[in-house]
Amino acid sequence: MVTPLRRALRRAGSAPAPDPQQPPAPPPPAAGQEEIRRQNLGAMLRYVHLHGPTSRAELTGRLGLNRSTIGALAAELVASGLVTEEVPTTPRRAGRPSLVVSPRSVRVYATAVSVEPERLRVARIGLGGRILDLREAPRPHGSALLDAVPAVAALIRESERELAADAFCAGGAAAVADTTRDDDGTVHVTGGDETFAVALDAALVGDGPGRRGFVWGDLADIAALAEHTRGVAAGVDDLVYLHGDLGVSAGIVTGGRLVTGHGGRSGKVGHMVVHPHGRRCGCGSRGCWETEVGVAALLRRAAAPPGTSALAVVRAAALGDSTARDALHGVADWLGFGVANLVNVFNPDIVVFGGTLREVYAAAAGTVRHRVDTMALPASREHLQLRAGALGPDAPLIGAAELAFENLLTDPLLGPAAGSQ
Amino acid sequence: MVTPLRRALRRAGSAPAPDPQQPPAPPPPAAGQEEIRRQNLGAMLRYVHLHGPTSRAELTGRLGLNRSTIGALAAELVASGLVTEEVPTTPRRAGRPSLVVSPRSVRVYATAVSVEPERLRVARIGLGGRILDLREAPRPHGSALLDAVPAVAALIRESERELAADAFCAGGAAAVADTTRDDDGTVHVTGGDETFAVALDAALVGDGPGRRGFVWGDLADIAALAEHTRGVAAGVDDLVYLHGDLGVSAGIVTGGRLVTGHGGRSGKVGHMVVHPHGRRCGCGSRGCWETEVGVAALLRRAAAPPGTSALAVVRAAALGDSTARDALHGVADWLGFGVANLVNVFNPDIVVFGGTLREVYAAAAGTVRHRVDTMALPASREHLQLRAGALGPDAPLIGAAELAFENLLTDPLLGPAAGSQ
Repeated sequence: MVTPLRRALRRAGSAPAPDPQQPPAPPPPAAGQEEIRRQNLGAMLRYVHLHGPTSRAELTGRLGLNRSTIGALAAELVASGLVTEEVPTTPRRAGRPSLVVSPRSVRVYATAVSVEPERLRVARIGLGGRILDLREAPRPHGSALLDAVPAVAALIRESERELAADAFCAGGAAAVADTTRDDDGTVHVTGGDETFAVALDAALVGDGPGRRGFVWGDLADIAALAEHTRGVAAGVDDLVYLHGDLGVSAGIVTGGRLVTGHGGRSGKVGHMVVHPHGRRCGCGSRGCWETEVGVAALLRRAAAPPGTSALAVVRAAALGDSTARDALHGVADWLGFGVANLVNVFNPDIVVFGGTLREVYAAAAGTVRHRVDTMALPASREHLQLRAGALGPDAPLIGAAELAFENLLTDPLLGPAAGSQ
Repeated sequence: MVTPLRRALRRAGSAPAPDPQQPPAPPPPAAGQEEIRRQNLGAMLRYVHLHGPTSRAELTGRLGLNRSTIGALAAELVASGLVTEEVPTTPRRAGRPSLVVSPRSVRVYATAVSVEPERLRVARIGLGGRILDLREAPRPHGSALLDAVPAVAALIRESERELAADAFCAGGAAAVADTTRDDDGTVHVTGGDETFAVALDAALVGDGPGRRGFVWGDLADIAALAEHTRGVAAGVDDLVYLHGDLGVSAGIVTGGRLVTGHGGRSGKVGHMVVHPHGRRCGCGSRGCWETEVGVAALLRRAAAPPGTSALAVVRAAALGDSTARDALHGVADWLGFGVANLVNVFNPDIVVFGGTLREVYAAAAGTVRHRVDTMALPASREHLQLRAGALGPDAPLIGAAELAFENLLTDPLLGPAAGSQ
């Protein structure tokens, strides 16, 4: 099944190509000059988007194009309103300095949405990955995903109230968490779907910069994409990103590509059963991993009142509270237990901890590592790195922005100049 | 890390492209006529390899090329010695019949090797997937992988003793199981590596059709590739193939691409711990899934003597032996337990059972399904199919042949005509 995220990622070159076992399509017609220019513009824009201001001289080397081509491409991106070119302020060598190409990170932005179990967040994120504006609103317990549309649309409108006249929105994307909680604390496994993106587009018709063509994806998947693009797993091909909030989900990258599964519902690792006689889980099963490593497990072990944050327990442990410390290390041990399973299944280069699991891992890394070393197969743990996420709670927003920028990075001629013509 | 299997699959178009998050390479130069012809020859050869004899008229439609191009390509493949063209014996319509293009499945073959815990198998498999010759030898308990090289090389030489003068070997590949057993029954987790392929090539220097350029892969991965290419999961993008022998391994395809992991060691699902207080496993851990679903678990439950085959227990159950029946359904229940975990993690379209698990599933599908329906998340089990593998014990050999043919299918100009020039 082609899920919306998979479709968006296919545009991004990050999803599977058509099945090689199927009758292959005939080869594409030879790329024309126009197509090559478009690809080169995209390559240059993507480079400065990911790596920041870069001199023409460096771009010449990185993109493998000659100086005059680089100059022409940069000029075209300047004319399109996507980058600026400036003489560097600190030339390092003698001779005429190479102009520096920078993304126009204030003018050109993406709308990033994060629908979390207990809050809604909206960011405008500039080309280059800079957060320009960040707003949030509480999410009522027990509310359905579509109930969030008006509040999210309102946050987006607020975020665009003082836009410059020439601002350009390159697109929008939403990271949608897969759990919600009722008032009585019952956790439900839910999930996003295309209707949310469609409804959000519809709610914004006539507002701001026009239709954004929202796409959506699972929050853990999108946060994994962020850590894979700009975070601790940049450049790593095989990664398991674990996101803790009410439950535990994973975003998994294998061979440089995000695993989405048949219906975009892969990575529900919190519902991997690790204990046949374990506790009852919100999903109806028993002994699911998240019953031992979710926030509820930490609070239960720490005898902390509902509503206490994971961070509060971690802090109490650091201050010497022995109940909190036992709770932390008990959860960390179970965390290592499930990580070992995932390491045996995926043989990743790196496991990244995000959300509440980031706090747990940061405070009890030794306990997690010890359990992984006890349980994972030697060949699979040899090169394994365990890491706290580098982007913290912004990961879902940064990942959503990457997804939202993808059309523009693939074809910069879709940019502001095209819109104003 | 680029594992040999990943490298081979990349040639096959079935492995990840370079990381899209990295600075992209400049676009390739416009494809020349020669390159397009090569791609078209590959597309036609792959089509008849996978689908069997096909009329020019059908190829015209399937490949989206015009009739004269199809005629020229077919003529070139005939001249290369890779296909034949014949007037169909049963024309269905009036008018001049369309010539039928068939792979030369006796002349052109691949050398497929399957290194299993207790036997070594070698097959010559013709273009089109037909097994031309199949030989096996026992594998001594406790022997290392490299110990198998002389015996495998001898089987290959035997299989080529009566080759036709114009026979052409397109390449070789080995599927290597990841477990071995000592004489005392202790199971070890091992794995293949590049040295086996190199040693096998070296052992065959000067024999038969020259250097095969052996590649190797994990047996479960290669069997998964076979079911994905020619078996029950043909055309399916998201698949978990489970292979049972001494242990349990998986070959996993997500988004149409095989998951290999950092070092080619993904899919060790038998060592997913499902019971923290469970039985001691050969890997040193406790409560691994394979301690409940491997052959040893079936024999233990059935109180059958070591060396009894899984099939014998399944047959005894079918004949009404209540101990055997309880053993079968006990194992089937645990099988469903782990499958539910994998379904929550991967959200596959289909789970395929191979090796000894094929027998267990075929005899107790209802028990497996019931456990999956109890434990897997509703959204992930909705479209889920469970199936016995279609290729049976030949799956690793058929998958290895697909891997071995890949160079030729990518570039048919490497074929026999090139070799004889």
